[in-house]
Amino acid sequence: MRLSRYFLPVLKETPGDAQVVSHQLMLRAGMIRQTAAGIYAWLPLGLRVLQKIAQIVREEQDRAGAIEVMMPTIQSAELWKQSGRYEAYGPEMLRITDRHDREMLFSPTAEELFTTIFHNGAKSYRDLPRNLYQIQWKFRDEVRPRFGVLRGREFLMKDAYSFDVDFAGARHSYNRMFIAYMRTFARMGLEAIPMQADTGPIGGDLSHEFIVLAPTGESDVFYHENWLQPRDTAAVDADDAAGLEAFIDGLNADYAATDEKRDPAAEAAAGDKLQQSKGIEVGQVFYFGDKYTKAMGVTVQGADGTPITPLMGSYGIGVSRLMGAIIEARHDKDGIIWPDAVAPYKVVLINLRVDDAACLAAADDLYARLTAAGVEVLYDDRDERGGAKFATADLIGVPWQLVVGPKGIANGVVELKRRGGDKIEIGIDAAVERLTA
Amino acid sequence: MRLSRYFLPVLKETPGDAQVVSHQLMLRAGMIRQTAAGIYAWLPLGLRVLQKIAQIVREEQDRAGAIEVMMPTIQSAELWKQSGRYEAYGPEMLRITDRHDREMLFSPTAEELFTTIFHNGAKSYRDLPRNLYQIQWKFRDEVRPRFGVLRGREFLMKDAYSFDVDFAGARHSYNRMFIAYMRTFARMGLEAIPMQADTGPIGGDLSHEFIVLAPTGESDVFYHENWLQPRDTAAVDADDAAGLEAFIDGLNADYAATDEKRDPAAEAAAGDKLQQSKGIEVGQVFYFGDKYTKAMGVTVQGADGTPITPLMGSYGIGVSRLMGAIIEARHDKDGIIWPDAVAPYKVVLINLRVDDAACLAAADDLYARLTAAGVEVLYDDRDERGGAKFATADLIGVPWQLVVGPKGIANGVVELKRRGGDKIEIGIDAAVERLTA
Repeated sequence: MRLSRYFLPVLKETPGDAQVVSHQLMLRAGMIRQTAAGIYAWLPLGLRVLQKIAQIVREEQDRAGAIEVMMPTIQSAELWKQSGRYEAYGPEMLRITDRHDREMLFSPTAEELFTTIFHNGAKSYRDLPRNLYQIQWKFRDEVRPRFGVLRGREFLMKDAYSFDVDFAGARHSYNRMFIAYMRTFARMGLEAIPMQADTGPIGGDLSHEFIVLAPTGESDVFYHENWLQPRDTAAVDADDAAGLEAFIDGLNADYAATDEKRDPAAEAAAGDKLQQSKGIEVGQVFYFGDKYTKAMGVTVQGADGTPITPLMGSYGIGVSRLMGAIIEARHDKDGIIWPDAVAPYKVVLINLRVDDAACLAAADDLYARLTAAGVEVLYDDRDERGGAKFATADLIGVPWQLVVGPKGIANGVVELKRRGGDKIEIGIDAAVERLTA
Repeated sequence: MRLSRYFLPVLKETPGDAQVVSHQLMLRAGMIRQTAAGIYAWLPLGLRVLQKIAQIVREEQDRAGAIEVMMPTIQSAELWKQSGRYEAYGPEMLRITDRHDREMLFSPTAEELFTTIFHNGAKSYRDLPRNLYQIQWKFRDEVRPRFGVLRGREFLMKDAYSFDVDFAGARHSYNRMFIAYMRTFARMGLEAIPMQADTGPIGGDLSHEFIVLAPTGESDVFYHENWLQPRDTAAVDADDAAGLEAFIDGLNADYAATDEKRDPAAEAAAGDKLQQSKGIEVGQVFYFGDKYTKAMGVTVQGADGTPITPLMGSYGIGVSRLMGAIIEARHDKDGIIWPDAVAPYKVVLINLRVDDAACLAAADDLYARLTAAGVEVLYDDRDERGGAKFATADLIGVPWQLVVGPKGIANGVVELKRRGGDKIEIGIDAAVERLTA
């Protein structure tokens, strides 16, 4: 993409109303604009990152055997009355009356609708287990939306719902999502720690929140320092229920809990290895049994003909929030430092002298070659000073900067710099080779 | 995907409340379920097709130089008051009051918000031309939603908005979208005819609706029979403004108009080549000049320092409606016949005898080989009769059916059938080769 034809409205000043660094940087880097309290428009650069995050989430859900669907954002209040949540949900639910005076709402989550859709399609025990998920916009009418996409009102969420015939199956479904979440966050360069979390009035120990450590987080969290080491999930076979359970039990042997689930005995055992921090919740896995299937009268036929009430779990990832969490974890004073997997472009190609014929020819040629090789290049072909171009490149945090200048071109070399790292002089062909490897 | 682990709730009976064939088939093929009047849940098979249609739309928008963004679904009423449309829009606009009693709405279209976002980011004539688009859910509170996704309330729409410094530029932006639309619909196997359409109170001749001919369409349309021949747009260079204009003028020399824009003289000239039909509108391109930029006080700095009011066009494609239009155009008594480009899977692999070891081994092997080669396979590995499997395969309309049965396997052959076409016996390796070519 040529920057001269793009839409990248970067800001020189930090907007005064943005309190946390991710919000500041997303505004400054021209990724988002607020259009109402807690509601954002996604500009081209922000949308590209959002799509990459969503795609990683999708791939890991698919890999875990979950099946993608999509529910409408506007739902009838009727289902929510059946489950009892229409009254219980409170003012965070955006309630709507349509032209025929029917009560509707903007989905803040979708247990009721997934339960209904599943019920409509599954008749027998052979139709289980199933895990259905969507990546769809949600709305929660936060009383004080803040911190940009970390706590917005309209946000993109992946929500999955599993259906099983018995607890052993439900536990395995839970574990599959657990490991899928570990893999998802690791692919984005995040160390997200699964922490025992509050299960509310339903109880049980089957709920974990995945927390990214960040000083700007809203949650107080407590964990064994072993969690600061990255965990290798590559070798786990998620189809092997017993092996997967053992692996996850092994992980959870290291203490980690949110404020609501602190365990004094476990903390005493951790001793001086106990860490306390602030964190950002980026995902939650939750088993709740027959809460919705029972309330909504859902059964399937068992092997012996008797009806079975399916047991459910739900599994959320804050897709748009993840972008904020990644920036909180990866930035410096000059801007964002994207992990490769979610970077909006791989390379920003900077032509320092658009009025120099040799530079122009070399930069155009590099752009053509890299693009033809499938490399995502943002080509800064604008008639601007070099300083402004470097500042923009650092701000938007693209992993590689490839710099074409008159002195280098005279010697057949360009400058290749890793964002947040070293720079080298390198021959033109070698640079192409490095970036296409 | 193994059908035994999928979620494909096909219906044997045609639902009584579905009047048009696309609605009937989408329900029967387990693609959608209605969740409220004019509001649908997208089940796995339907979502796959929706994503493929959206991706074709996206690729052709990108190719035409448009830049993808995404606006929130929930917008503040303020902007709509500025443009004067908050009152004018009427009861089709879903109006919402949030917890702080602020007036909000679910976006039925987004001229106001795109104009604002553009204004915020573009300062000078050098920042034009630009064309920004999104693929996002819209809501229009139709008084009588009907015909499934053809006239739903919540629907997926691509909307693009162009900004130019003068009329010549705006005309070129319009033409680029015009040709992008021809290409988009052609890639989906649709013959969509661009017809002069009503421009409303703004006037001018720069509005075309793209209409798919179908007896179930809601529009009466009139056109020269030349339009029944497919048009080749491959050779047109969309960057060449004059050549593109000449090409489109050439197309439009053949009369085509919607009911509101009939031209008696042109119809007389067409004589007995004039055709009348019903049609489904799948897209519209519309030039409206400074209507919004003027009302909302948008200017950029011109080359000589004087302010310029940008001229705009907007360009819509009904992404979810297209699915209905494609089915209306491509089905038979047994079900849907997908064009390859939007088919949910390329092949349905049918094992006629899951209890036969040779069949099972051959089918599993075919599934593994095709999947490894990147072919999208739906593998009917269920313990069902062959008749039911063939009926499902025909109903869901996947382009190829690959059938493994005991007699064939004994002779080393399988059956390969084109949906709606012929079937052949073919060696296993040859079948793989055919499907991966």
